[in-house]
Amino acid sequence: MSDENTTIEKLKEKMAQFVGERNWERYHSPKNLSMTIAIEAAELMEKFQWIDKDESYKEIVCNKKEIEEELADIFSAILSFAHFYKIDLSDAFVRKMMANTQKYPIEKVKNKGIEAVKLCREIYAKHKD
Amino acid sequence: MSDENTTIEKLKEKMAQFVGERNWERYHSPKNLSMTIAIEAAELMEKFQWIDKDESYKEIVCNKKEIEEELADIFSAILSFAHFYKIDLSDAFVRKMMANTQKYPIEKVKNKGIEAVKLCREIYAKHKD
Amino acid sequence: MSDENTTIEKLKEKMAQFVGERNWERYHSPKNLSMTIAIEAAELMEKFQWIDKDESYKEIVCNKKEIEEELADIFSAILSFAHFYKIDLSDAFVRKMMANTQKYPIEKVKNKGIEAVKLCREIYAKHKD
Amino acid sequence: MSDENTTIEKLKEKMAQFVGERNWERYHSPKNLSMTIAIEAAELMEKFQWIDKDESYKEIVCNKKEIEEELADIFSAILSFAHFYKIDLSDAFVRKMMANTQKYPIEKVKNKGIEAVKLCREIYAKHKD
Repeated sequence: MSDENTTIEKLKEKMAQFVGERNWERYHSPKNLSMTIAIEAAELMEKFQWIDKDESYKEIVCNKKEIEEELADIFSAILSFAHFYKIDLSDAFVRKMMANTQKYPIEKVKNKGIEAVKLCREIYAKHKD
Repeated sequence: MSDENTTIEKLKEKMAQFVGERNWERYHSPKNLSMTIAIEAAELMEKFQWIDKDESYKEIVCNKKEIEEELADIFSAILSFAHFYKIDLSDAFVRKMMANTQKYPIEKVKNKGIEAVKLCREIYAKHKD
Repeated sequence: MSDENTTIEKLKEKMAQFVGERNWERYHSPKNLSMTIAIEAAELMEKFQWIDKDESYKEIVCNKKEIEEELADIFSAILSFAHFYKIDLSDAFVRKMMANTQKYPIEKVKNKGIEAVKLCREIYAKHKD
Repeated sequence: MSDENTTIEKLKEKMAQFVGERNWERYHSPKNLSMTIAIEAAELMEKFQWIDKDESYKEIVCNKKEIEEELADIFSAILSFAHFYKIDLSDAFVRKMMANTQKYPIEKVKNKGIEAVKLCREIYAKHKD
Protein backbone atom coordinates (compact mmCIF):
# COMPACT_ATOMS: atom_id res chain seq x y z
CA MET A 1 0.00 0.00 0.00
CA SER A 2 1.22 3.46 -0.80
CA ASP A 3 -0.20 6.98 -0.71
CA GLU A 4 -0.42 6.86 -4.52
CA ASN A 5 -3.02 4.12 -4.56
CA THR A 6 -4.66 4.18 -1.12
CA THR A 7 -7.89 6.00 -0.34
CA ILE A 8 -8.59 7.51 3.06
CA GLU A 9 -11.63 5.26 3.34
CA LYS A 10 -9.45 2.18 3.04
CA LEU A 11 -7.31 3.31 5.99
CA LYS A 12 -10.35 4.28 8.05
CA GLU A 13 -11.68 0.74 7.54
CA LYS A 14 -8.41 -0.82 8.66
CA MET A 15 -8.39 1.33 11.78
CA ALA A 16 -12.05 0.61 12.54
CA GLN A 17 -11.41 -3.13 12.20
CA PHE A 18 -8.45 -2.98 14.60
CA VAL A 19 -10.50 -1.09 17.18
CA GLY A 20 -13.67 -3.15 16.68
CA GLU A 21 -11.95 -6.55 16.99
CA ARG A 22 -10.78 -5.50 20.46
CA ASN A 23 -14.09 -3.92 21.55
CA TRP A 24 -12.21 -0.70 22.09
CA GLU A 25 -14.89 1.60 20.65
CA ARG A 26 -15.89 2.50 24.23
CA TYR A 27 -12.41 3.99 24.84
CA HIS A 28 -12.46 5.95 21.59
CA SER A 29 -14.85 8.68 22.73
CA PRO A 30 -14.34 12.08 21.08
CA LYS A 31 -12.88 13.41 24.34
CA ASN A 32 -10.38 10.55 24.69
CA LEU A 33 -9.35 10.60 21.03
CA SER A 34 -8.70 14.34 21.14
CA MET A 35 -6.33 13.64 24.06
CA THR A 36 -4.70 10.81 22.13
CA ILE A 37 -3.99 13.04 19.14
CA ALA A 38 -2.40 15.64 21.45
CA ILE A 39 -0.36 13.02 23.35
CA GLU A 40 0.98 11.47 20.17
CA ALA A 41 1.71 14.93 18.74
CA ALA A 42 3.82 15.66 21.82
CA GLU A 43 5.81 12.47 21.20
CA LEU A 44 6.62 13.73 17.71
CA MET A 45 7.62 17.14 19.11
CA GLU A 46 9.95 15.44 21.55
CA LYS A 47 12.18 14.47 18.61
CA PHE A 48 12.77 18.17 17.89
CA GLN A 49 12.57 19.59 21.42
CA TRP A 50 16.15 20.69 22.00
CA ILE A 51 17.37 21.20 18.44
CA ASP A 52 16.99 24.12 16.09
CA LYS A 53 15.36 24.27 12.69
CA ASP A 54 18.47 23.30 10.73
CA GLU A 55 19.08 20.25 12.84
CA SER A 56 15.43 19.26 12.66
CA TYR A 57 15.93 18.65 8.91
CA LYS A 58 18.82 16.29 9.69
CA GLU A 59 16.82 14.55 12.39
CA ILE A 60 14.27 13.53 9.75
CA VAL A 61 17.01 11.74 7.86
CA CYS A 62 18.74 9.97 10.73
CA ASN A 63 15.65 9.05 12.73
CA LYS A 64 13.25 8.45 9.86
CA LYS A 65 11.79 5.20 11.17
CA GLU A 66 10.93 6.55 14.63
CA ILE A 67 9.49 9.74 13.21
CA GLU A 68 7.32 7.75 10.77
CA GLU A 69 6.00 5.74 13.69
CA GLU A 70 5.08 8.87 15.65
CA LEU A 71 3.35 10.36 12.63
CA ALA A 72 1.49 7.08 12.09
CA ASP A 73 0.30 7.17 15.72
CA ILE A 74 -1.20 10.63 15.27
CA PHE A 75 -2.71 9.66 11.94
CA SER A 76 -4.31 6.52 13.43
CA ALA A 77 -6.08 8.56 16.09
CA ILE A 78 -7.35 10.97 13.41
CA LEU A 79 -8.62 8.07 11.28
CA SER A 80 -10.43 6.60 14.28
CA PHE A 81 -11.99 9.96 15.12
CA ALA A 82 -13.08 10.49 11.51
CA HIS A 83 -14.44 6.97 11.17
CA PHE A 84 -16.46 6.79 14.37
CA TYR A 85 -17.81 10.32 14.18
CA LYS A 86 -18.56 10.26 10.46
CA ILE A 87 -16.23 12.98 9.29
CA ASP A 88 -15.11 12.93 5.67
CA LEU A 89 -11.47 13.99 5.97
CA SER A 90 -11.01 14.73 2.25
CA ASP A 91 -14.07 16.93 2.18
CA ALA A 92 -13.16 18.70 5.45
CA PHE A 93 -9.60 19.24 4.20
CA VAL A 94 -10.68 20.66 0.83
CA ARG A 95 -13.16 23.03 2.47
CA LYS A 96 -10.50 24.22 4.94
CA MET A 97 -8.02 24.76 2.06
CA MET A 98 -10.62 26.90 0.29
CA ALA A 99 -11.10 28.99 3.42
CA ASN A 100 -7.34 29.35 3.86
CA THR A 101 -6.89 30.32 0.22
CA GLN A 102 -9.30 33.21 0.81
CA LYS A 103 -7.73 34.10 4.15
CA TYR A 104 -4.19 34.16 2.74
CA PRO A 105 -4.30 35.44 -0.88
CA ILE A 106 -1.02 34.61 -2.67
CA GLU A 107 -0.27 38.18 -3.75
CA LYS A 108 -0.74 39.40 -0.19
CA VAL A 109 1.42 36.90 1.67
CA LYS A 110 4.06 35.61 -0.78
CA ASN A 111 7.56 36.65 0.28
CA LYS A 112 6.12 39.18 2.72
CA GLY A 113 7.41 37.54 5.89
CA ILE A 114 5.30 37.42 9.02
CA GLU A 115 3.88 40.86 9.87
CA ALA A 116 4.10 40.31 13.62
CA VAL A 117 7.76 39.29 13.35
CA LYS A 118 8.72 42.44 11.47
CA LEU A 119 6.89 44.59 13.98
CA CYS A 120 8.60 42.74 16.81
CA ARG A 121 12.04 43.34 15.30
CA GLU A 122 11.37 47.08 15.28
CA ILE A 123 10.09 47.16 18.86
CA TYR A 124 13.06 45.08 19.96
CA ALA A 125 15.57 47.34 18.22
CA LYS A 126 14.09 50.40 19.99
CA HIS A 127 13.94 48.56 23.31
CA LYS A 128 17.64 47.74 23.12
CA ASP A 129 18.65 51.39 22.65
CA MET B 1 -13.98 14.76 -3.24
CA SER B 2 -14.69 12.17 -0.62
CA ASP B 3 -12.71 9.65 1.42
CA GLU B 4 -14.14 6.89 -0.82
CA ASN B 5 -12.37 8.11 -3.93
CA THR B 6 -9.46 10.27 -2.72
CA THR B 7 -5.91 9.02 -2.32
CA ILE B 8 -3.57 10.41 0.33
CA GLU B 9 -1.20 11.45 -2.47
CA LYS B 10 -3.90 13.68 -3.98
CA LEU B 11 -4.32 15.53 -0.66
CA LYS B 12 -0.56 15.81 -0.14
CA GLU B 13 -0.30 17.47 -3.55
CA LYS B 14 -3.03 19.96 -2.75
CA MET B 15 -1.33 20.85 0.52
CA ALA B 16 2.10 21.16 -1.15
CA GLN B 17 0.63 23.45 -3.79
CA PHE B 18 -0.96 25.71 -1.16
CA VAL B 19 2.32 25.97 0.74
CA GLY B 20 4.49 26.32 -2.36
CA GLU B 21 2.43 29.08 -3.96
CA ARG B 22 3.05 31.18 -0.85
CA ASN B 23 6.75 30.31 -0.49
CA TRP B 24 5.96 28.99 2.94
CA GLU B 25 8.22 25.89 2.73
CA ARG B 26 10.77 27.73 4.90
CA TYR B 27 8.24 27.91 7.76
CA HIS B 28 7.31 24.25 7.45
CA SER B 29 10.46 22.82 9.06
CA PRO B 30 10.00 19.51 10.88
CA LYS B 31 10.33 21.33 14.22
CA ASN B 32 7.69 23.94 13.35
CA LEU B 33 5.26 21.43 11.86
CA SER B 34 5.48 19.22 14.94
CA MET B 35 4.46 22.28 16.98
CA THR B 36 1.64 23.03 14.56
CA ILE B 37 0.20 19.53 14.90
CA ALA B 38 0.29 19.86 18.70
CA ILE B 39 -1.24 23.35 18.66
CA GLU B 40 -4.09 22.31 16.38
CA ALA B 41 -4.62 19.15 18.45
CA ALA B 42 -5.06 21.38 21.52
CA GLU B 43 -7.72 23.37 19.70
CA LEU B 44 -9.65 20.16 19.08
CA MET B 45 -9.27 19.18 22.76
CA GLU B 46 -10.65 22.54 23.79
CA LYS B 47 -14.06 21.47 22.44
CA PHE B 48 -14.15 18.65 25.01
CA GLN B 49 -12.20 20.26 27.85
CA TRP B 50 -14.90 20.70 30.48
CA ILE B 51 -17.37 18.00 29.45
CA ASP B 52 -17.44 14.30 30.18
CA LYS B 53 -17.37 11.41 27.78
CA ASP B 54 -21.15 11.20 27.33
CA GLU B 55 -21.41 14.84 26.47
CA SER B 56 -18.44 14.64 24.13
CA TYR B 57 -20.59 12.38 21.88
CA LYS B 58 -23.28 15.05 21.78
CA GLU B 59 -20.74 17.77 21.11
CA ILE B 60 -19.79 15.98 17.88
CA VAL B 61 -23.37 16.31 16.70
CA CYS B 62 -24.05 19.89 17.66
CA ASN B 63 -20.67 21.34 16.76
CA LYS B 64 -19.87 19.15 13.78
CA LYS B 65 -18.68 21.92 11.49
CA GLU B 66 -16.21 23.43 13.97
CA ILE B 67 -14.88 20.01 14.95
CA GLU B 68 -14.38 19.09 11.29
CA GLU B 69 -12.39 22.26 10.82
CA GLU B 70 -10.13 21.50 13.77
CA LEU B 71 -9.55 17.96 12.52
CA ALA B 72 -8.79 19.32 9.04
CA ASP B 73 -6.20 21.69 10.55
CA ILE B 74 -4.37 18.82 12.24
CA PHE B 75 -4.62 16.70 9.09
CA SER B 76 -3.21 19.52 6.92
CA ALA B 77 -0.11 19.77 9.08
CA ILE B 78 0.37 16.00 8.89
CA LEU B 79 0.02 16.06 5.11
CA SER B 80 2.58 18.86 4.86
CA PHE B 81 4.98 16.98 7.12
CA ALA B 82 4.56 13.76 5.13
CA HIS B 83 4.91 15.53 1.79
CA PHE B 84 8.01 17.59 2.52
CA TYR B 85 9.83 14.88 4.47
CA LYS B 86 8.92 12.04 2.11
CA ILE B 87 6.90 9.90 4.46
CA ASP B 88 4.39 7.49 2.95
CA LEU B 89 1.50 7.74 5.41
CA SER B 90 -0.32 4.63 4.16
CA ASP B 91 2.80 2.54 4.46
CA ALA B 92 3.72 3.98 7.89
CA PHE B 93 0.16 3.42 9.10
CA VAL B 94 -0.01 -0.18 7.90
CA ARG B 95 3.33 -1.02 9.48
CA LYS B 96 2.24 0.54 12.78
CA MET B 97 -1.03 -1.40 12.67
CA MET B 98 0.93 -4.63 12.21
CA ALA B 99 3.10 -3.78 15.21
CA ASN B 100 0.03 -2.92 17.29
CA THR B 101 -1.70 -6.15 16.26
CA GLN B 102 1.25 -8.08 17.68
CA LYS B 103 1.44 -5.88 20.77
CA TYR B 104 -2.27 -6.22 21.54
CA PRO B 105 -3.43 -9.72 20.51
CA ILE B 106 -7.24 -9.86 20.31
CA GLU B 107 -7.66 -12.81 22.68
CA LYS B 108 -5.52 -11.10 25.28
CA VAL B 109 -7.14 -7.67 25.34
CA LYS B 110 -10.76 -8.11 24.18
CA ASN B 111 -13.21 -7.32 26.96
CA LYS B 112 -10.43 -7.45 29.52
CA GLY B 113 -10.55 -3.80 30.54
CA ILE B 114 -7.41 -1.86 31.27
CA GLU B 115 -5.14 -3.76 33.66
CA ALA B 116 -3.85 -0.59 35.35
CA VAL B 117 -7.39 0.62 35.99
CA LYS B 118 -8.43 -2.60 37.69
CA LEU B 119 -5.33 -2.53 39.85
CA CYS B 120 -6.02 1.08 40.72
CA ARG B 121 -9.58 0.30 41.79
CA GLU B 122 -8.27 -2.28 44.25
CA ILE B 123 -5.61 0.02 45.68
CA TYR B 124 -8.19 2.80 45.97
CA ALA B 125 -10.70 0.56 47.75
CA LYS B 126 -8.04 -0.40 50.32
CA HIS B 127 -6.89 3.17 50.69
CA LYS B 128 -10.40 4.33 51.53
CA ASP B 129 -10.80 1.83 54.37
CA MET C 1 10.75 22.50 51.91
CA SER C 2 7.02 22.78 51.60
CA ASP C 3 4.54 25.02 49.80
CA GLU C 4 3.77 26.64 53.19
CA ASN C 5 7.21 28.12 53.59
CA THR C 6 8.72 28.27 50.10
CA THR C 7 8.67 31.33 47.87
CA ILE C 8 8.51 31.09 44.08
CA GLU C 9 11.81 32.97 43.92
CA LYS C 10 13.52 30.24 45.94
CA LEU C 11 12.41 27.60 43.44
CA LYS C 12 13.36 29.75 40.45
CA GLU C 13 16.86 30.05 41.90
CA LYS C 14 17.17 26.30 42.36
CA MET C 15 16.08 25.73 38.77
CA ALA C 16 18.44 28.42 37.43
CA GLN C 17 21.32 26.87 39.32
CA PHE C 18 20.61 23.42 37.91
CA VAL C 19 20.47 24.78 34.36
CA GLY C 20 23.45 27.11 34.78
CA GLU C 21 25.78 24.48 36.25
CA ARG C 22 25.26 22.45 33.06
CA ASN C 23 25.53 25.39 30.63
CA TRP C 24 22.08 24.50 29.40
CA GLU C 25 20.82 28.09 29.11
CA ARG C 26 21.35 27.88 25.34
CA TYR C 27 18.78 25.06 25.11
CA HIS C 28 16.25 26.93 27.25
CA SER C 29 15.13 29.40 24.58
CA PRO C 30 11.53 30.61 24.87
CA LYS C 31 10.60 28.48 21.85
CA ASN C 32 12.16 25.31 23.26
CA LEU C 33 10.76 25.82 26.76
CA SER C 34 7.25 26.33 25.41
CA MET C 35 7.63 22.93 23.70
CA THR C 36 8.94 21.40 26.91
CA ILE C 37 5.93 22.58 28.89
CA ALA C 38 3.60 21.09 26.26
CA ILE C 39 5.52 17.80 26.09
CA GLU C 40 5.51 17.37 29.86
CA ALA C 41 1.82 18.32 30.00
CA ALA C 42 1.12 15.51 27.52
CA GLU C 43 2.90 13.06 29.80
CA LEU C 44 0.59 14.05 32.64
CA MET C 45 -2.46 13.67 30.34
CA GLU C 46 -1.29 10.20 29.43
CA LYS C 47 -2.12 9.07 32.97
CA PHE C 48 -5.79 9.94 32.36
CA GLN C 49 -6.03 9.21 28.64
CA TRP C 50 -8.33 6.18 28.60
CA ILE C 51 -10.18 6.61 31.89
CA ASP C 52 -13.20 8.71 32.76
CA LYS C 53 -13.51 11.49 35.28
CA ASP C 54 -14.46 9.24 38.20
CA GLU C 55 -11.51 6.99 37.67
CA SER C 56 -9.18 9.95 37.27
CA TYR C 57 -9.82 10.76 40.95
CA LYS C 58 -8.75 7.25 41.91
CA GLU C 59 -5.70 7.42 39.65
CA ILE C 60 -4.44 10.35 41.74
CA VAL C 61 -4.50 8.15 44.81
CA CYS C 62 -2.93 5.00 43.38
CA ASN C 63 -0.33 6.66 41.17
CA LYS C 64 0.45 9.67 43.34
CA LYS C 65 4.22 9.48 43.02
CA GLU C 66 4.29 9.30 39.22
CA ILE C 67 1.72 12.07 38.90
CA GLU C 68 3.72 14.29 41.25
CA GLU C 69 6.77 13.74 39.08
CA GLU C 70 4.94 14.72 35.91
CA LEU C 71 3.57 17.85 37.59
CA ALA C 72 7.07 18.69 38.84
CA ASP C 73 8.41 18.37 35.27
CA ILE C 74 5.88 20.88 33.96
CA PHE C 75 6.51 23.19 36.92
CA SER C 76 10.30 23.09 36.37
CA ALA C 77 9.93 24.25 32.79
CA ILE C 78 7.65 27.09 33.92
CA LEU C 79 10.16 28.14 36.58
CA SER C 80 12.97 28.15 34.03
CA PHE C 81 10.89 30.18 31.59
CA ALA C 82 9.94 32.68 34.30
CA HIS C 83 13.49 32.94 35.59
CA PHE C 84 15.31 33.44 32.31
CA TYR C 85 12.72 35.74 30.78
CA LYS C 86 12.12 37.82 33.90
CA ILE C 87 8.49 37.02 34.50
CA ASP C 88 7.14 37.42 38.02
CA LEU C 89 4.79 34.44 38.29
CA SER C 90 3.00 35.69 41.43
CA ASP C 91 2.32 39.03 39.86
CA ALA C 92 1.24 37.53 36.52
CA PHE C 93 -1.02 35.06 38.35
CA VAL C 94 -2.69 37.71 40.50
CA ARG C 95 -3.32 39.95 37.51
CA LYS C 96 -4.82 37.04 35.57
CA MET C 97 -7.04 36.15 38.53
CA MET C 98 -8.32 39.73 38.64
CA ALA C 99 -9.13 39.58 34.92
CA ASN C 100 -10.87 36.22 35.36
CA THR C 101 -12.86 37.53 38.33
CA GLN C 102 -14.24 40.26 36.09
CA LYS C 103 -14.80 37.89 33.18
CA TYR C 104 -16.65 35.34 35.31
CA PRO C 105 -18.67 37.20 38.01
CA ILE C 106 -19.75 34.78 40.74
CA GLU C 107 -23.45 35.60 40.54
CA LYS C 108 -23.43 35.00 36.80
CA VAL C 109 -21.65 31.66 36.67
CA LYS C 110 -22.24 29.92 40.00
CA ASN C 111 -24.30 26.76 39.56
CA LYS C 112 -25.30 27.84 36.08
CA GLY C 113 -23.55 25.02 34.21
CA ILE C 114 -21.83 25.62 30.94
CA GLU C 115 -24.04 27.55 28.52
CA ALA C 116 -22.68 25.77 25.44
CA VAL C 117 -23.35 22.36 27.01
CA LYS C 118 -26.98 23.19 27.75
CA LEU C 119 -27.47 24.46 24.22
CA CYS C 120 -25.83 21.34 22.85
CA ARG C 121 -28.15 19.07 24.83
CA GLU C 122 -31.16 20.79 23.26
CA ILE C 123 -29.77 20.57 19.73
CA TYR C 124 -28.89 16.94 20.30
CA ALA C 125 -32.34 16.08 21.62
CA LYS C 126 -33.95 17.60 18.52
CA HIS C 127 -31.43 15.92 16.22
CA LYS C 128 -32.29 12.51 17.65
CA ASP C 129 -36.01 12.89 16.89
CA MET D 1 2.78 40.37 45.56
CA SER D 2 6.01 39.21 44.00
CA ASP D 3 7.91 35.94 43.67
CA GLU D 4 10.33 37.23 46.33
CA ASN D 5 7.74 37.24 49.09
CA THR D 6 4.99 34.90 47.96
CA THR D 7 4.71 31.25 48.98
CA ILE D 8 3.21 28.61 46.71
CA GLU D 9 0.60 27.93 49.40
CA LYS D 10 -0.63 31.52 49.19
CA LEU D 11 -1.21 31.18 45.44
CA LYS D 12 -2.86 27.78 45.83
CA GLU D 13 -5.30 29.37 48.29
CA LYS D 14 -6.14 32.19 45.92
CA MET D 15 -6.78 29.71 43.12
CA ALA D 16 -8.88 27.45 45.36
CA GLN D 17 -10.97 30.43 46.45
CA PHE D 18 -11.61 31.49 42.86
CA VAL D 19 -12.70 27.97 41.90
CA GLY D 20 -14.70 27.36 45.09
CA GLU D 21 -16.69 30.61 44.91
CA ARG D 22 -17.96 29.51 41.50
CA ASN D 23 -18.63 25.87 42.47
CA TRP D 24 -16.27 24.84 39.73
CA GLU D 25 -14.55 22.04 41.66
CA ARG D 26 -16.66 19.53 39.71
CA TYR D 27 -15.04 20.68 36.45
CA HIS D 28 -11.54 20.52 37.90
CA SER D 29 -11.16 16.73 37.83
CA PRO D 30 -7.60 15.44 37.35
CA LYS D 31 -8.48 14.42 33.79
CA ASN D 32 -9.90 17.83 32.87
CA LEU D 33 -7.08 19.78 34.53
CA SER D 34 -4.45 17.75 32.71
CA MET D 35 -6.19 18.78 29.46
CA THR D 36 -6.30 22.39 30.60
CA ILE D 37 -2.57 22.47 31.26
CA ALA D 38 -1.91 21.05 27.78
CA ILE D 39 -4.35 23.44 26.09
CA GLU D 40 -2.84 26.49 27.79
CA ALA D 41 0.67 25.23 27.00
CA ALA D 42 -0.31 25.10 23.32
CA GLU D 43 -1.43 28.72 23.51
CA LEU D 44 2.02 29.68 24.77
CA MET D 45 3.67 27.65 21.99
CA GLU D 46 1.54 29.47 19.44
CA LYS D 47 3.56 32.63 20.17
CA PHE D 48 6.71 30.89 18.95
CA GLN D 49 5.22 28.59 16.30
CA TRP D 50 6.63 30.07 13.09
CA ILE D 51 9.73 31.81 14.40
CA ASP D 52 13.20 30.49 15.14
CA LYS D 53 15.10 30.49 18.39
CA ASP D 54 16.69 33.90 17.90
CA GLU D 55 13.40 35.56 17.20
CA SER D 56 11.78 33.82 20.14
CA TYR D 57 14.05 35.87 22.44
CA LYS D 58 12.77 39.06 20.81
CA GLU D 59 9.18 37.88 21.02
CA ILE D 60 9.53 37.76 24.81
CA VAL D 61 10.42 41.44 24.81
CA CYS D 62 7.80 42.75 22.42
CA ASN D 63 4.91 40.56 23.55
CA LYS D 64 5.74 40.35 27.23
CA LYS D 65 2.23 41.01 28.51
CA GLU D 66 0.56 38.35 26.38
CA ILE D 67 3.23 35.79 27.15
CA GLU D 68 2.89 36.47 30.88
CA GLU D 69 -0.83 35.87 30.59
CA GLU D 70 -0.33 32.53 28.84
CA LEU D 71 2.21 31.45 31.46
CA ALA D 72 -0.19 32.53 34.22
CA ASP D 73 -2.94 30.39 32.64
CA ILE D 74 -0.75 27.28 32.71
CA PHE D 75 0.40 28.07 36.25
CA SER D 76 -3.20 28.51 37.48
CA ALA D 77 -4.14 25.05 36.25
CA ILE D 78 -1.09 23.57 37.98
CA LEU D 79 -1.98 25.34 41.23
CA SER D 80 -5.54 24.04 41.05
CA PHE D 81 -4.31 20.51 40.37
CA ALA D 82 -1.83 20.68 43.25
CA HIS D 83 -4.38 22.18 45.63
CA PHE D 84 -7.27 19.80 44.99
CA TYR D 85 -5.17 16.66 44.78
CA LYS D 86 -2.91 17.50 47.72
CA ILE D 87 0.40 17.72 45.94
CA ASP D 88 3.16 19.78 47.55
CA LEU D 89 4.75 21.44 44.53
CA SER D 90 7.90 22.57 46.35
CA ASP D 91 8.53 19.11 47.69
CA ALA D 92 7.77 17.43 44.34
CA PHE D 93 10.04 19.90 42.56
CA VAL D 94 12.96 19.43 44.95
CA ARG D 95 12.69 15.65 44.72
CA LYS D 96 12.63 15.83 40.93
CA MET D 97 15.65 18.13 40.92
CA MET D 98 17.55 15.62 43.06
CA ALA D 99 16.70 12.83 40.64
CA ASN D 100 17.74 14.99 37.66
CA THR D 101 21.01 15.93 39.38
CA GLN D 102 21.84 12.22 39.60
CA LYS D 103 20.64 11.52 36.06
CA TYR D 104 22.68 14.37 34.57
CA PRO D 105 25.95 14.73 36.53
CA ILE D 106 27.59 18.10 35.78
CA GLU D 107 30.94 16.67 34.73
CA LYS D 108 29.23 14.31 32.31
CA VAL D 109 26.93 16.75 30.52
CA LYS D 110 28.50 20.22 30.77
CA ASN D 111 29.52 21.54 27.36
CA LYS D 112 29.15 18.08 25.86
CA GLY D 113 26.29 18.90 23.52
CA ILE D 114 23.48 16.45 22.95
CA GLU D 115 24.82 12.97 22.15
CA ALA D 116 21.96 12.15 19.76
CA VAL D 117 22.53 15.38 17.83
CA LYS D 118 26.22 14.66 17.29
CA LEU D 119 25.42 11.15 16.14
CA CYS D 120 22.77 12.50 13.80
CA ARG D 121 25.20 14.97 12.24
CA GLU D 122 27.54 12.10 11.38
CA ILE D 123 24.80 9.93 9.91
CA TYR D 124 23.52 12.88 7.92
CA ALA D 125 26.97 13.72 6.56
CA LYS D 126 27.37 10.12 5.34
CA HIS D 127 23.85 10.05 3.94
CA LYS D 128 24.53 13.13 1.84
CA ASP D 129 27.59 11.61 0.17
